[in-house]
Amino acid sequence: MASTSPGYSITVRVQAPPTMGATADLAAAVLAAGGALTALDVVESKPDGIVVDVTCNASDADHADQISDAIAQLPGVTVRKVSDRTFLLHLGGKIEIQSKVPLKHRDDLSRAYTPGVARVCLAIAKNPADARRLTIKRNTVAVVTDGTAVLGLGDIGPAAAMPVMEGKAALFKHFGGVDAWPVVLDTKDVDQIVEIVRCIAPGYGGINLEDISAPRCFEIERRLKELLDIPVFHDDQHGTAIVVLAALTNALRVVGRKPADVKVVVSGVGAAGHAIIRLLAAQGYGDIIGCDRHGAVDPAKPGMDEFRRWIADNTNPRGVRGTLAQTLVGADVFIGVSAPNLLTGDDIARMNKGAIVFALANPDPEVDPFAAAQHAAIVATGRSDYPNQINNVLAFPGFFRGMLDAGTHEINEQTMIAAATAIADCVSADELNANYIVPSVFDADVAPAVADAVRKAALSS
Amino acid sequence: MASTSPGYSITVRVQAPPTMGATADLAAAVLAAGGALTALDVVESKPDGIVVDVTCNASDADHADQISDAIAQLPGVTVRKVSDRTFLLHLGGKIEIQSKVPLKHRDDLSRAYTPGVARVCLAIAKNPADARRLTIKRNTVAVVTDGTAVLGLGDIGPAAAMPVMEGKAALFKHFGGVDAWPVVLDTKDVDQIVEIVRCIAPGYGGINLEDISAPRCFEIERRLKELLDIPVFHDDQHGTAIVVLAALTNALRVVGRKPADVKVVVSGVGAAGHAIIRLLAAQGYGDIIGCDRHGAVDPAKPGMDEFRRWIADNTNPRGVRGTLAQTLVGADVFIGVSAPNLLTGDDIARMNKGAIVFALANPDPEVDPFAAAQHAAIVATGRSDYPNQINNVLAFPGFFRGMLDAGTHEINEQTMIAAATAIADCVSADELNANYIVPSVFDADVAPAVADAVRKAALSS
Repeated sequence: MASTSPGYSITVRVQAPPTMGATADLAAAVLAAGGALTALDVVESKPDGIVVDVTCNASDADHADQISDAIAQLPGVTVRKVSDRTFLLHLGGKIEIQSKVPLKHRDDLSRAYTPGVARVCLAIAKNPADARRLTIKRNTVAVVTDGTAVLGLGDIGPAAAMPVMEGKAALFKHFGGVDAWPVVLDTKDVDQIVEIVRCIAPGYGGINLEDISAPRCFEIERRLKELLDIPVFHDDQHGTAIVVLAALTNALRVVGRKPADVKVVVSGVGAAGHAIIRLLAAQGYGDIIGCDRHGAVDPAKPGMDEFRRWIADNTNPRGVRGTLAQTLVGADVFIGVSAPNLLTGDDIARMNKGAIVFALANPDPEVDPFAAAQHAAIVATGRSDYPNQINNVLAFPGFFRGMLDAGTHEINEQTMIAAATAIADCVSADELNANYIVPSVFDADVAPAVADAVRKAALSS
Repeated sequence: MASTSPGYSITVRVQAPPTMGATADLAAAVLAAGGALTALDVVESKPDGIVVDVTCNASDADHADQISDAIAQLPGVTVRKVSDRTFLLHLGGKIEIQSKVPLKHRDDLSRAYTPGVARVCLAIAKNPADARRLTIKRNTVAVVTDGTAVLGLGDIGPAAAMPVMEGKAALFKHFGGVDAWPVVLDTKDVDQIVEIVRCIAPGYGGINLEDISAPRCFEIERRLKELLDIPVFHDDQHGTAIVVLAALTNALRVVGRKPADVKVVVSGVGAAGHAIIRLLAAQGYGDIIGCDRHGAVDPAKPGMDEFRRWIADNTNPRGVRGTLAQTLVGADVFIGVSAPNLLTGDDIARMNKGAIVFALANPDPEVDPFAAAQHAAIVATGRSDYPNQINNVLAFPGFFRGMLDAGTHEINEQTMIAAATAIADCVSADELNANYIVPSVFDADVAPAVADAVRKAALSS
């Protein structure tokens, strides 16, 4: 049975007999069906019956159905309604706009709107740099997607991508104090996406590209960096690479190794894999093998795009060939940002002693983390129900906070390494062990530490 | 001396002698210079001197300088700093984003973000109409401009237009509970603007075009209406036309006339004039003459765009020719949305008895309202320091509230007339007189009344 998650939490409203045993039966039915009971609320009580809200976590949508079916089969029990708490939370969306200025009387209106606002407009027309002082630009980031690579769901389109972008905006504000706004685009054309972002950029202090499929995301990012004077960040690349580097930094501390001395295999050379490989290389990891679905990237393969070409030309110094499992033999570090269930515990057993395994495919990792842990020294996943969750939330709010505060726009390897080091250093020597190589996503010290490190690195580079 | 405005409010921090007369001298200096003193705050008091914040309203930026110069010339007084309260209010911008969902612990994150959010995304991918239920779309409007016709300032560009768009967003929320977001575009190309708005539309429940110059605004609006399934409104056209129709409805009630019986002259056939003429015609005003800078629009003139052509073909049934002043002779209603100081009191004197004058050019009207009032029965302007301010704030928040609540997208003459009637009816029979033909912009009943009328009209049409 897979573990349950509050992301699959349901509330089943039932009519039950007014007997002592009825609520006990409800609880027993949930538990027997594998649900994690979180609340039993009697919302109505009458001589002839009670109404109870049974709230529990399931492991997925089918499991939620099984639990409510199990409840419905209890004698004398009628299911009135099954509410999904995740959907309830999303009703009306997750973010809103607030005015920061009073609008109570004429004086307010005269300053915030006409006629006073005209002078502020003219000041910016005269000195465009004043936009960072007199408008929301300085604190505002566009979260831009075309909906082509949303979570592990693939190309679900711009409208369906909104809940992720809104969630991102909520996280930006909560952890970084950054005002982020979802910009979901009904186009997949690279030229058009670049041009749209260029045109909307005057209102923003930064661009966070999100869930755009590779290799289009690389070209969009590169062209926007050339066109714009505000930072352009692709969270699936840079956010992931930063957190992976942070986790790997601490993992090497645990096993007592150095970047130059370890052999790394990266499974997946899309957005995340590409960025991870480049950032690890910049940080001194000398022996990296990138693998696609056919195994080690083959430099002789024709028709590579320039991004795949870079990997072919700049990694795999020993010229290893073969499948993913073959490249893993004798490796020290496995980083998976690819697909579920590519490897078994036996494959991990063939890695070197003290192996480090980051199996980050979501929701199902490249290798079962429990099987991997039989053979590896350290295992991390992208999941919240296993230790060492590699989660971009550790990076992007603080990263943008630092870039916006610096007022610069160049995102380079120094700023990303600074962010990764700041995250790694949020785990103290006392705390550091194989089960705690990254800080909790709720550690309120992380975003300010990242912001501070990024601001300094951005200003000095 | 022009009247002072809180839109030009300054705070002058001065070092003054610790004498009884010092503050009296400061107050006298402000008044002698024509400033309207609003506060004298002693912020520091020591035996050898006091520090005073002198806050006053000026009539414009030069006048503010004159006032602080006058203060500086007082014996023993040193001006330390002059702060502009309008600029202070704009520091960091006027709106911000708030999360509507808690993000305090793991359960929150599991529902608002991964893994729970994936199910919400899939639900929308399966049934796109759910975006209105499960995202911010239903309550969210894009305030779109290219910065080409901002207030009376002309083409000041997208960055300099931001303070107006932010102010609009603040007003949308305050009066209509609508979440509006500024989209300022670094392009003036009609095709590109249309395509950008089409591409960003999945995230929005409505489009409010703003301060885009004519005739481009007409084409952009028409094409977007064809492309999108959400309401497209151009505030400079439709918002203005709605409030003008509301004011004219009440003005005719005051003078006891009917739409079919009055002769109307509209000065200005840009965005606002065009929309006013069309809406008045739809409401049964049969005798309308549109004037451009050369006088009555001449149907024989070659090279007209289709929008000017419509005016030439559908107005001026008596075939009047001549300058603006000539067309006014014997007219009942003058509506100016054009340029300052085109007319004198004598021109107004040649209108019919009981004339209605709406001189709406900002900040300086087509005719001095005090001179016009010598001859007209009713005078209105766009200014806040004169009775009967024609202000779009009366229309757009309630209008969009009503359209979003209806969930329909067609903005037609019925919905606009419904909005205008609702605004007019917010002035009760007891309140209605020549100095009060429109409700106050701070009348909290207006937006809900407009929303209700628009929702009903939208659902029935």
